[in-house]
Amino acid sequence: MIKVGIVGGTGYTGVELLRLLAQHPKVELKAITSRKEAGMPVSEMFPNLRGRVNLKFADPSEAPLKHCDVVFFATPNGIAMQQTRELLDSGVRVIDLAADFRIKDVGVWEKWYGMEHACPDLIEEAVYGLPEMNREKVKTARLVANPGCYPTAAQLGFLPLIEAGVVDVEHLIADCKSGVSGAGRKAEVHALFAEASDNFKAYGVAGHRHLPEIKQGLSLMAGKQAGLTFVPHLTPLIRGIHATLYARLTKDVDLQALFEKRYESEHFVDVMPAGSHPETRSVRSANFCRIAVHRQQEGDMVVVLSVIDNLVKGASGQAVQNMNIMFRLDEAMGLEQIPLLP
Amino acid sequence: MIKVGIVGGTGYTGVELLRLLAQHPKVELKAITSRKEAGMPVSEMFPNLRGRVNLKFADPSEAPLKHCDVVFFATPNGIAMQQTRELLDSGVRVIDLAADFRIKDVGVWEKWYGMEHACPDLIEEAVYGLPEMNREKVKTARLVANPGCYPTAAQLGFLPLIEAGVVDVEHLIADCKSGVSGAGRKAEVHALFAEASDNFKAYGVAGHRHLPEIKQGLSLMAGKQAGLTFVPHLTPLIRGIHATLYARLTKDVDLQALFEKRYESEHFVDVMPAGSHPETRSVRSANFCRIAVHRQQEGDMVVVLSVIDNLVKGASGQAVQNMNIMFRLDEAMGLEQIPLLP
Amino acid sequence: MIKVGIVGGTGYTGVELLRLLAQHPKVELKAITSRKEAGMPVSEMFPNLRGRVNLKFADPSEAPLKHCDVVFFATPNGIAMQQTRELLDSGVRVIDLAADFRIKDVGVWEKWYGMEHACPDLIEEAVYGLPEMNREKVKTARLVANPGCYPTAAQLGFLPLIEAGVVDVEHLIADCKSGVSGAGRKAEVHALFAEASDNFKAYGVAGHRHLPEIKQGLSLMAGKQAGLTFVPHLTPLIRGIHATLYARLTKDVDLQALFEKRYESEHFVDVMPAGSHPETRSVRSANFCRIAVHRQQEGDMVVVLSVIDNLVKGASGQAVQNMNIMFRLDEAMGLEQIPLLP
Amino acid sequence: MIKVGIVGGTGYTGVELLRLLAQHPKVELKAITSRKEAGMPVSEMFPNLRGRVNLKFADPSEAPLKHCDVVFFATPNGIAMQQTRELLDSGVRVIDLAADFRIKDVGVWEKWYGMEHACPDLIEEAVYGLPEMNREKVKTARLVANPGCYPTAAQLGFLPLIEAGVVDVEHLIADCKSGVSGAGRKAEVHALFAEASDNFKAYGVAGHRHLPEIKQGLSLMAGKQAGLTFVPHLTPLIRGIHATLYARLTKDVDLQALFEKRYESEHFVDVMPAGSHPETRSVRSANFCRIAVHRQQEGDMVVVLSVIDNLVKGASGQAVQNMNIMFRLDEAMGLEQIPLLP
Repeated sequence: MIKVGIVGGTGYTGVELLRLLAQHPKVELKAITSRKEAGMPVSEMFPNLRGRVNLKFADPSEAPLKHCDVVFFATPNGIAMQQTRELLDSGVRVIDLAADFRIKDVGVWEKWYGMEHACPDLIEEAVYGLPEMNREKVKTARLVANPGCYPTAAQLGFLPLIEAGVVDVEHLIADCKSGVSGAGRKAEVHALFAEASDNFKAYGVAGHRHLPEIKQGLSLMAGKQAGLTFVPHLTPLIRGIHATLYARLTKDVDLQALFEKRYESEHFVDVMPAGSHPETRSVRSANFCRIAVHRQQEGDMVVVLSVIDNLVKGASGQAVQNMNIMFRLDEAMGLEQIPLLP
Repeated sequence: MIKVGIVGGTGYTGVELLRLLAQHPKVELKAITSRKEAGMPVSEMFPNLRGRVNLKFADPSEAPLKHCDVVFFATPNGIAMQQTRELLDSGVRVIDLAADFRIKDVGVWEKWYGMEHACPDLIEEAVYGLPEMNREKVKTARLVANPGCYPTAAQLGFLPLIEAGVVDVEHLIADCKSGVSGAGRKAEVHALFAEASDNFKAYGVAGHRHLPEIKQGLSLMAGKQAGLTFVPHLTPLIRGIHATLYARLTKDVDLQALFEKRYESEHFVDVMPAGSHPETRSVRSANFCRIAVHRQQEGDMVVVLSVIDNLVKGASGQAVQNMNIMFRLDEAMGLEQIPLLP
Repeated sequence: MIKVGIVGGTGYTGVELLRLLAQHPKVELKAITSRKEAGMPVSEMFPNLRGRVNLKFADPSEAPLKHCDVVFFATPNGIAMQQTRELLDSGVRVIDLAADFRIKDVGVWEKWYGMEHACPDLIEEAVYGLPEMNREKVKTARLVANPGCYPTAAQLGFLPLIEAGVVDVEHLIADCKSGVSGAGRKAEVHALFAEASDNFKAYGVAGHRHLPEIKQGLSLMAGKQAGLTFVPHLTPLIRGIHATLYARLTKDVDLQALFEKRYESEHFVDVMPAGSHPETRSVRSANFCRIAVHRQQEGDMVVVLSVIDNLVKGASGQAVQNMNIMFRLDEAMGLEQIPLLP
Repeated sequence: MIKVGIVGGTGYTGVELLRLLAQHPKVELKAITSRKEAGMPVSEMFPNLRGRVNLKFADPSEAPLKHCDVVFFATPNGIAMQQTRELLDSGVRVIDLAADFRIKDVGVWEKWYGMEHACPDLIEEAVYGLPEMNREKVKTARLVANPGCYPTAAQLGFLPLIEAGVVDVEHLIADCKSGVSGAGRKAEVHALFAEASDNFKAYGVAGHRHLPEIKQGLSLMAGKQAGLTFVPHLTPLIRGIHATLYARLTKDVDLQALFEKRYESEHFVDVMPAGSHPETRSVRSANFCRIAVHRQQEGDMVVVLSVIDNLVKGASGQAVQNMNIMFRLDEAMGLEQIPLLP
């Protein structure tokens, strides 16, 4: 059994990790920490876990994190970087669901995240945990930077096009829509039901933190600097991201075949039949990314539709997928739930 | 492996049965029928099942239902009663998710359902499949009448009070609220998003078909005719029923202890700590009923709060639970998913 | 023109007052205060008011409240009672949308609201502003206590029954459901979209602050102490309250005629035809209360369905209605908007 | 008073016309027709109109449409073209909220709408009723083709850029999101609450009927054939359209100033301050289009955000605006409601 610790378990990625790990046949949950809620039974905060998770939130200073095989950070940005080195030095592997190790250029990171990085030397070692791009590196990683939610949906959608070199990579557009759980379980006015329900808006058009992360990934695929316009929107869903991606074709190609071939051996990426419109609910609660690729009216613009559950493939599910890879388990172990529809 | 057939698989209880049965370790899905959609792959209608259910909808006349061990009817009222005898005669056990066999008094049934019953003699044989009341009878049943959604939530909430004889059974009130999936996957104006969203209303106050079903159950518990006012409401949830139950205390009693004792060995009924307010989402996608019992300001009115997922414990999950009991499997087999929150 | 000030304009009752008053032909908005947001244009916080309300939030100490004809308090409980005397002494009339002056028994008030009352002597003078009960007193009031949202829906529903003496007033039940805007525009986790959406729950079953307010009103109607069980629920609407009221008939009576007669001259109470189920959206954005009265299966339990928009008839609209009465305007002036459907 | 008739009043644009016209000071509602519901009081179907609209649905053959000054068609596509000539010949002016007269090229129209046009000769006469482009022509029009919802939001967003000649008009992108009321009040499975709630999807990517309408408008602005990729999405709102528009800058220009200048005299187009993110709810129930213009990270891509209420500025409100213009009334008469927030 893999001994698992979770740092920061009171948010949505935390409770989702618990839901997935409590059903994972090879995992033993050792500790879940929360400075603020130390002592409270986890199932008191999250009644869906009653009878299934009997842990209490532990104070971080007292939790047996160093005796775990792997520790997940489900914390705000800037926490994992404070504690990772000590864990790695104790032989504990680390999967950070926040952004501390996602951006390779520390200057870029510090600009977008507005703080000094505590351990720039670990950034290089960290493996960006998008298994469909980096599976081999994840296997041996000590430190995995779990991708952001928008970056997962956008990169998986663009990947076949850019790898195949069939689109203009300088003018890519990602028009993305996220459910409100993406804003986290923080008490903020803009995420109140009476604000976010029956309402739709863009945000962060001037520049969102996932912009440099996506650009970094697209540039790596392209082998040169990619140009991207990224507009995130808030939509009244609890869970789900829908990325609508636009790229100009530079070569004629069978798009459907290209996507199907690229992902034929990927368990969690489902290329839908030509003409499909994937729905966010078709992946609700599950670790899938479903993708459809279109050319409208035979024009030169490719439109890719890519959907994930932001809390699963966009966060906690992908983290468990990475753990499975790191510990040489079946990649889908504990992640076989069928999406909930309706 | 238990060979399973489903008649009428295009509604919400149908797709929910598929979700649960496809993950059940002892079930082999043999057939799912739909007259209208015969030939269509199930996963084309329900994309959440892509890669997990490879069946096509079969025409009822061609499906190998007689070679199944058990057949579920996820059909409108009035269908199962046409086909049950033939299946039973072929040695197939039947679980009807509709109402054909729920009411013992055929006259009452015919009045409320507005049709003649096709096989009144089978009504007596049918076992009302609320395991918490009728587990022993379910074990040997050939024909199980799976309870309605409101009746499940209401009966489980009233059961400890009535069995213990501590309330006035002549003036019970069940104020129940249901998500919109309870109306089924039928194209009807009142269930449109633009009608049902951001809206709340009662319906069927003059008399709803679940009224006689609940009264029958409460009367059986009481050993005499129970009196009930039942008001159903439509609330903008996809899934979930919340029953708020009112009864006047006739004896002083430790209500919390009464409920905990009654349900201590029930896997799927969770009596929450005193003072709790169960949320519908705490059982979303799972087969639990969570219950809390209150006395407001130490008055003589007991208030019971009872929540279920109408498609799981209120329909398909309870049907699988009944199947498990009938085939002497672990009662919770295939029903161990943790509720989805948020 | 009536010169109007608003204290505490950053919540939902504040913005709703602004929406209504900005369209009122006899009102001149003089000031709206917010300690925290002083200096910010109101329309920056509430973009629906762009081009229609050009005020900035003013610091309370600098706002010309004493030069107003009437001041509305759209503040948390406990604020109005600090400032009312000074305003009254300056000849300004006051309408408090919070609870400071609703409960006549100061001991009861202090118990439920957990603070000492700052001006108990003003409580007696204050008029409880439910026009359908107290219109004559409102006309001459200097200080109006605007009713709570649940109390408005519940009292208007019970009123004809209790006044006519046809029900058992010792065992009344009010099962009430509220949209999430009723929780206010405060950053609290339980009111987040990802918590409150697709979820239904009861709360405050042990005792909610509106319980003593409703009981006080019902007891006044009855001329003796009324007994009430009151269970509020949170439902995923932005706006709307649905009260489902239960009372036992003690006399046979034509309920429909009773209600129609009681409210025949009330502009804002709409008794719907027999058999109706009023929807919350049928009053969305408007000052109406729509009511239907039922007897299920000819039993002895009366069921009353009563719906309001909690921010209009349940708060700001009723406050404007009271203002109209106090200033001898047409009672419906500025309140003639047709409800928004869908 | 202008005598008004409505053909086809049982859909959402119909009830919205009634809401607006019943509050219009210069309108006398003469008739509203519905073949199917003839004889039913309008307020029975739409209880928000109780006490405000006392008409019954009339059979089309019996309604006094020819005695009206103007008739609105709130019908499915293909109806208005059957009846328009007769009305025009009787001196009645016509505003068609459907698509019968929007596309000037009858071949294009017939291809996209799948039927033969009944009166191609009237197409040329028809004025496309986007007042911000065609106000002068609307004034004298006998027949107005009221624009589609997506086309309104998209054209108003692109207009200043294209008129000023500062973007590449061959590669425009309109990523649009609509609330579910846009699908109409038809009983269809995909628009059920349990299908459309907590779900997000694109649709019609292969080609939506609003594509040729928008392209026609953009080409007129550009003076040459425009190229457009248009992807509509369904989002769980009742009302609202959010258009996110992408265009490549070909000249450096002060975008904010460009937009403010273009719309400075337009009552219903609100250019928000630089950096804004208009929300759909900021126009809910009102006839405004709010627009913000962005350049992300100083790149060469302009991003325009444009929101409307699809039932108001996207349908019935714009129709009333056109009526006001045609009858030389104040353009905003009857359209001054403040948007409903929250």
